[in-house]
Amino acid sequence: MKTKDFMYDGEKKLDLKKLSTNGKEYKPDKQKTIEKTAKMLPRLGELQSRLYAEAKEGLLVILQAIDAAGKDSTIKHVMSGINPQGVIVTSFKQPTSAELAHGFLWRIEKAIPERGYIGIMNRSHYEDVLTVKVNKFYKSYNMPGRCIDMSEKEFFKNRYRMINNYEEYLSLSGYRIIKIFLNVSADKQKERFLERIDNPAKNWKFSASDLKERAKWDEYREAFEDAINATGTKTAPWYVLPADRKWLTRYLVTKILLETLEDMDPQFPKLSKEETAKLGDYKTALLNEK
Amino acid sequence: MKTKDFMYDGEKKLDLKKLSTNGKEYKPDKQKTIEKTAKMLPRLGELQSRLYAEAKEGLLVILQAIDAAGKDSTIKHVMSGINPQGVIVTSFKQPTSAELAHGFLWRIEKAIPERGYIGIMNRSHYEDVLTVKVNKFYKSYNMPGRCIDMSEKEFFKNRYRMINNYEEYLSLSGYRIIKIFLNVSADKQKERFLERIDNPAKNWKFSASDLKERAKWDEYREAFEDAINATGTKTAPWYVLPADRKWLTRYLVTKILLETLEDMDPQFPKLSKEETAKLGDYKTALLNEK
Repeated sequence: MKTKDFMYDGEKKLDLKKLSTNGKEYKPDKQKTIEKTAKMLPRLGELQSRLYAEAKEGLLVILQAIDAAGKDSTIKHVMSGINPQGVIVTSFKQPTSAELAHGFLWRIEKAIPERGYIGIMNRSHYEDVLTVKVNKFYKSYNMPGRCIDMSEKEFFKNRYRMINNYEEYLSLSGYRIIKIFLNVSADKQKERFLERIDNPAKNWKFSASDLKERAKWDEYREAFEDAINATGTKTAPWYVLPADRKWLTRYLVTKILLETLEDMDPQFPKLSKEETAKLGDYKTALLNEK
Repeated sequence: MKTKDFMYDGEKKLDLKKLSTNGKEYKPDKQKTIEKTAKMLPRLGELQSRLYAEAKEGLLVILQAIDAAGKDSTIKHVMSGINPQGVIVTSFKQPTSAELAHGFLWRIEKAIPERGYIGIMNRSHYEDVLTVKVNKFYKSYNMPGRCIDMSEKEFFKNRYRMINNYEEYLSLSGYRIIKIFLNVSADKQKERFLERIDNPAKNWKFSASDLKERAKWDEYREAFEDAINATGTKTAPWYVLPADRKWLTRYLVTKILLETLEDMDPQFPKLSKEETAKLGDYKTALLNEK
C-alpha cells in the first residue's frame, strides 16, 4: 500500500465510482496498521521541530470532504504527534459578507502561516468549486458581468486556473502543498449521522442542512471529480483516501505527511564557524556569572 | 493629449529614454490645465458615491515611482475629490520580518478592500520586482532552492508571471486595476531633494538612503522598463506619466481615474418593484409616528 497509489497529480484521471472507500483491496491488518501509525508519530514530531527551526519552507495541508468523512478527527490525530506551537489550523466555514465582498482567495491568503509552520486547512478555497458549484451560489454574487456572465463550465474553468496559478505562487513562495480528499461512502456517512443523532455528546455536530447536502450526493461526487482532475498537479497533488475506516485513513494521512517532510528534509540551522568558535567564550561567561 | 498615449497594455514597448518627463511636446497651458482638473473632481466624487453604493466592482490604483516623483502629493490631490469613507490608501514600506516570511503577495492581498471601494496603493507588489531586483535582496531570502536557485532573469520572469496571474484573479474577482508610474527626471528629483533639505518642514521626507538609491538611477530605469513591459496588460494597464510638473501629472491622474470610473459606470442600486410600491406605506408609517 503505497501513498502514490492514492495520488492524483495530473497523470491519471480520477473516477470516484471506481474507487473503494474502505481500502479493503489492500487487505490491511487493523492492529498492525494502528501500531505502524503510532510508530511514525515521533519521527513526524522531530521533522516538524526542524521545519520550525529552519523556517525555510512551509507545509500546507488542505483537507476536503463531505460531512462526517472524518476531517476533524484526522486533524486531531495528526496534531497529537506535533508541537502545536508550529502548527496553525484554520477552519473555513460559510463565508462572511466581508469575505464575499473580496476575491475568493482573500481569506485563504490571509490564513497562510509563515514559512516554518505547518498550516492545516479544514476546508479551503476548494469550497468555492465544490459547495459553490453544487448550490450555484455564484449566480447571486454582486459582481460585474465579466466575472459571472458566462456558462457554468467557463466560470469554473476560470476558477480552476486561478487555483492552479495561486498554488504555483505558494510553491514558488516556499510552501509545499498536500491536498487530501477523504472519500467516504454514503452508507458510512449515514451510519455516522445516525451516531451524531443518537449520541447526545455528538448532537452539536449534526444539523438539518447536513441531510440537504447529503441529498446532493451525486452532484458533490461530480464536483469533487472535476476539481481534483483540474487541480491535481506535480506542485500541489491531491490524495484521494478511503475514509470509511478511520484507522486506515489516519495511517495514510500520517504516512503522506511523514514522506513529504522527509522529502523536504529540514535541518536545524547551523551557526557560522565564527559563532561556533565563540561558543566556548559564551559558556565561560555564563559559568563565571556572579 | 489623450490618456491612451501614456498607456502600456502590451501593445507597444516602453523605452523610458525616449519619453519626456515634462510633457512639453503636448504644449499644455498651465492655468487651463489646472482649471480642467478642478472641473473633473465633482464628477469623480459622484461616480465614487455610486461605486460605493453599488459595491459591485472595486477600483485599485497602484502608484509606483522613484523617490520625490510625487506619489504622496498625487494621492492627496485625488483624495480631495472623493469621500474618504469609500477609499482605502495603503502605503507599502520595507517589508517586516512577518511579511518576508510569507509570499510577496500576502501583504498586498490582505490590503485589498471590499468591492465598492477605491483602493490606492502607495507602492505595491511591484517593489518586489523593482527595489528587490536593483538591490538583489532576494538572494538572501530564507527559501528553498526551487524558489531562488536560478538566474536573475528566471527569478523575475517567474515573478512577472505570478503578478500577471494575480492581477487576472483580481480582475475576475471584480476589481479594475490601474497602474501608474510617475516618470520624473534626475534633474527634477535633485531639485526636490534640495528643497527637502533646505525646507525644515520637509526635512522629515529626506533620508541619506535616498541618495544611495539615486545613485542607482540607471538600474531603476531598467527595472521599471522590464516590469512595465512584462506586466502591462489589457486587464491591468500601466500609465507612464510625465512627473516633472505636478499640475500636469494631477490632470492626467484625475483624467485616467475619471475615464475608468465612467467606463465602469456604477449605478445606485434600484429597489425592486415590490419595495418601490411599499415606499408610500413606509412614508405614511413615519409621518404617523406618535
